[in-house]
Amino acid sequence: MSSWTLYDYLPSGNGYKCRLAMHQLGKPFRLVQKDIVAGMTRTPEFLALNANGRIPLLDLGDGRRLAESNAILLFVAEGSPLVPADPWERAQVYQWLFFEQYSHEPNVATPRFWLQHVPEEKIDRVQLAKKQDLGRAALGVMDRHLSTRTFFVGERYTVADIALYAYTHVADEGGLDLAPFPAVLRWLARVKEQPRHVTITYLG
Amino acid sequence: MSSWTLYDYLPSGNGYKCRLAMHQLGKPFRLVQKDIVAGMTRTPEFLALNANGRIPLLDLGDGRRLAESNAILLFVAEGSPLVPADPWERAQVYQWLFFEQYSHEPNVATPRFWLQHVPEEKIDRVQLAKKQDLGRAALGVMDRHLSTRTFFVGERYTVADIALYAYTHVADEGGLDLAPFPAVLRWLARVKEQPRHVTITYLG
Repeated sequence: MSSWTLYDYLPSGNGYKCRLAMHQLGKPFRLVQKDIVAGMTRTPEFLALNANGRIPLLDLGDGRRLAESNAILLFVAEGSPLVPADPWERAQVYQWLFFEQYSHEPNVATPRFWLQHVPEEKIDRVQLAKKQDLGRAALGVMDRHLSTRTFFVGERYTVADIALYAYTHVADEGGLDLAPFPAVLRWLARVKEQPRHVTITYLG
Repeated sequence: MSSWTLYDYLPSGNGYKCRLAMHQLGKPFRLVQKDIVAGMTRTPEFLALNANGRIPLLDLGDGRRLAESNAILLFVAEGSPLVPADPWERAQVYQWLFFEQYSHEPNVATPRFWLQHVPEEKIDRVQLAKKQDLGRAALGVMDRHLSTRTFFVGERYTVADIALYAYTHVADEGGLDLAPFPAVLRWLARVKEQPRHVTITYLG
């Protein structure tokens, strides 16, 4: 049995990235669920594990802990085909991982979180519409890139695809229709067909 | 003469990261300034170079182009002491780079951009205060981490320090006072003392 523990919240796309990659790589881990809606990542106990108060958090069981979903992805997949060895391909993987956290996640994941977890009367509709517009812009950047490619980098499945799949495949839950992005839809289907693919709520 | 071109905007902390690292590494490049306030990164010509419409953008002069400041940092510094070779140290560098783009930049850099470049009557004061609160939270996470360390990872200067220095050292321009974060202030001084350090508006 592995001594790795992933602190996570099952509906989280950020957590799903790590769970999907570790499942596909055959790396066993124990899942400890922390309900972010109930504030379980802001308790003194959890803040002692991750001062930034966020899941996912990978605990290696020897005192080492790693936060940030895309850092966890790069760490667990290093040396596997999911992370290219070629410096230029690696650089492009990095580019898409940072694009995901800066231009995509705040505008595709956040509307989903608000619409799924925040009481309707507490949702700021102006901010929601702004974020959805930026979310559509990010999906447009992805669609243009994928219109001539099968995957984001090097024509094969990498952690860049895992990171961008996580919230894109549930974008509709944030009020974002993927129909205007046909290349994204075809790519989603290709990601889903990868060996050992599991769904966002798969519990092993 | 190098054939590398950096498309950039001089006041940009994201651009500064790349300029500072390339200067410290002795990598020559040509700087092409794009005024983001004047919309120069959203022209059809620039969107053909970077579909996401953002600086910094590194053009290698052979058809290859790389976006996302932290991806550029990792690419230009790979193999140098600024990027650790050890897998666990690398993972921690990744963690802080993603922290910077997700928890720090949107809340430390954006208030600065609004206060420096947006007409006062157009600033959303509620959003500004929210971002400043989150900015102080990010600075608090950094201060706690640095209270027992000289640099972010491995007790030496890496791209994680460069990335976090870029907007932290001008946080006051976004209305964020650094006085409550003494470990951050001591670390800023250490970064500034590094060989071949240059300021954000240094033009070579």
